[in-house]
Amino acid sequence: MSATFAELWAEIAPIGRVANGYERYALQEPELVLRDWFRNQAARRDMPVTDDGNGNLFAWWGGQWGHDAVLTGSHFDSVPHGGGYDGPLGIVSGFLAVDELRRRGHVPRRPIAVVAFVDEEGGRFGLPCLGSRLLTGAIEPETAAALTDREGVTFGEALGTTPAGRLPGLTSRIGALIELHIEQGRALEVPVGVASAIWPHGRWRFDFTGHGDHAGTTRMADRRDPMLTFAYTVLAANKEARLAGAHATVARVEVEPNATNAIPSLVRGWLDARAAETNTLDGLVEAVIKRAYDRAARDGVEVSVTNESFSQEVSFETSLAARISELLGHAPILPTGAGHDAGVLSAHVPTAMLFVRNPTGVSHSPAEHAEEADCVEGIQALARVLLDLT
Amino acid sequence: MSATFAELWAEIAPIGRVANGYERYALQEPELVLRDWFRNQAARRDMPVTDDGNGNLFAWWGGQWGHDAVLTGSHFDSVPHGGGYDGPLGIVSGFLAVDELRRRGHVPRRPIAVVAFVDEEGGRFGLPCLGSRLLTGAIEPETAAALTDREGVTFGEALGTTPAGRLPGLTSRIGALIELHIEQGRALEVPVGVASAIWPHGRWRFDFTGHGDHAGTTRMADRRDPMLTFAYTVLAANKEARLAGAHATVARVEVEPNATNAIPSLVRGWLDARAAETNTLDGLVEAVIKRAYDRAARDGVEVSVTNESFSQEVSFETSLAARISELLGHAPILPTGAGHDAGVLSAHVPTAMLFVRNPTGVSHSPAEHAEEADCVEGIQALARVLLDLT
Repeated sequence: MSATFAELWAEIAPIGRVANGYERYALQEPELVLRDWFRNQAARRDMPVTDDGNGNLFAWWGGQWGHDAVLTGSHFDSVPHGGGYDGPLGIVSGFLAVDELRRRGHVPRRPIAVVAFVDEEGGRFGLPCLGSRLLTGAIEPETAAALTDREGVTFGEALGTTPAGRLPGLTSRIGALIELHIEQGRALEVPVGVASAIWPHGRWRFDFTGHGDHAGTTRMADRRDPMLTFAYTVLAANKEARLAGAHATVARVEVEPNATNAIPSLVRGWLDARAAETNTLDGLVEAVIKRAYDRAARDGVEVSVTNESFSQEVSFETSLAARISELLGHAPILPTGAGHDAGVLSAHVPTAMLFVRNPTGVSHSPAEHAEEADCVEGIQALARVLLDLT
Repeated sequence: MSATFAELWAEIAPIGRVANGYERYALQEPELVLRDWFRNQAARRDMPVTDDGNGNLFAWWGGQWGHDAVLTGSHFDSVPHGGGYDGPLGIVSGFLAVDELRRRGHVPRRPIAVVAFVDEEGGRFGLPCLGSRLLTGAIEPETAAALTDREGVTFGEALGTTPAGRLPGLTSRIGALIELHIEQGRALEVPVGVASAIWPHGRWRFDFTGHGDHAGTTRMADRRDPMLTFAYTVLAANKEARLAGAHATVARVEVEPNATNAIPSLVRGWLDARAAETNTLDGLVEAVIKRAYDRAARDGVEVSVTNESFSQEVSFETSLAARISELLGHAPILPTGAGHDAGVLSAHVPTAMLFVRNPTGVSHSPAEHAEEADCVEGIQALARVLLDLT
């Protein structure tokens, strides 16, 4: 094996690429092709592959039954029309770091596994980090099995079985997780950095129920139009987030019936909110909900709010981050607003993240990009960390 | 033939009914079933059916080649999740009025035709009154053929041919059109009324183009989020319409990529605007567009506005409306904000509309309803008008 980054990247780049970015959804065609590619890469390297029964794949070097294993990897799935780096870069870098260690003649004294987590974005089943949540018991298998995609297919049906759920026998054998990921802001000015923390974040669904009616004939004063309450809430979320120094986004909306000449009976919007501190986040969400209710009363609209997911603040192990930073020539240590499987795992095993520079800061978009030279530096850095740990 | 209104209504009521109202779209399954039902009703009454090559159906009593024909009818198609009366009531009433005239032994001296116009709502191909526009030459056949539905099927494909377009040979033989329709506001306090005018109205598509990015990591100050500009425009349209004493609605939206954690790259919204006077409507739309552009500049978003349809103010023939009103015991004469095929035809032939009372004023909604007794009164009124005209 002596594949270069450019070679491996060229293999996966066309998979799931559409006119406008990538559509790689968990356990559907392009992602299934990437999972086959994963098995193939593992086979080429004599790394046996195990499936944890939750949809997560592990390729092992040094024995799957050994203790204190070091995991590295990320996820294949994308957001709708996302970029190609968010996720796959960590998996490709994992395999190439293994190659690099072997080239140096390294014999690991702890097992190393390259991992591919399932539905990290929640792009298909709505709950981010589904695979890592299942593995660590953060969600019950029956609950996960019943999650549905937009076509009404359940996760259980897509997986072909009820997921295995928490696997203490496996997690107890994991000694560390090092997830390499493209950075998703413009905070990193050198090729590689180390994560300090993940902001607490969550998703809230707002159902605004009004009264469907004819757009041409219904007097303005007689309307109960939920689109107005939705629109007001979008602007309120933006304003409250700016005031709080936090992030709030309403980027997904569903309208019933979504016809030009029919006042909607229902508008459903999803709020994505994040902040550096849990208190700030709580205050932000509370303020947005209050303003939605206030406006709803004016519009004659009913509101219900459902918290679909919430991720506590994650502080990665300070000593591990410091050690890695030093190993990489004092690489910068920085927080992120983006959730990751590493954040879920960090409650159970020592966890660190390597970030590869993102020159434009763009992510979750077709325009997401990392320079090849930075990706190669990321692989070298990951190899150095794995060498040090094993 | 001695079918009652209740019997015929019970035949069509289940066709295209879904959990939440009706889904009857032009030239698709339930609407095709209704067209078969039309042919069947015509056959039962020995009324030969002609298709004008534009998707409009005519059932003739007294010969399709006679001159000075009196048309009555409406459309089968609904808005998404609309009511069952908007459209079909006019067609059912047309057949039952023919029955009533025959029961009275009437021999018309002018041909009478029951008509079913295609895609009046524009619910499938986006342009309201498509069938009547084609028939009268208000849209070119090639333009109509290229209109696409949400699945990318063109009107030409659905029709199986390029539409025939303007048919002066047919329209010159039409002496009058009387369209019966459920009233769509709460303006009618007796069972039957007569239309005076249709407000000028139109549809404008706003494309808000921003910059797709990660909802968690992109700083608020760095965003170019088109959802904000859309939301502001929704509220601005509402406010400007109230100030102008007009109607404005944004009820349809499309978001790219419409994912919870991805700032949209594109939000597309449709403005439906109507007013009693063309000047008022022009001023309203101008004001909304100006406010959208102003906000877009603040949001770093680009806007483009496309007028997808515009219908001039329609004043139905005053003398015909007065004559009908008198015939019906001084039935009230009232304007409407809703567009109709009768409005399109009125530029070419003497046209009138009968309205049947709508007790709640609700339309374009599953809750749309008319009382059976009012519908029967509507049929009797239509029969009286047809008797008088023929």
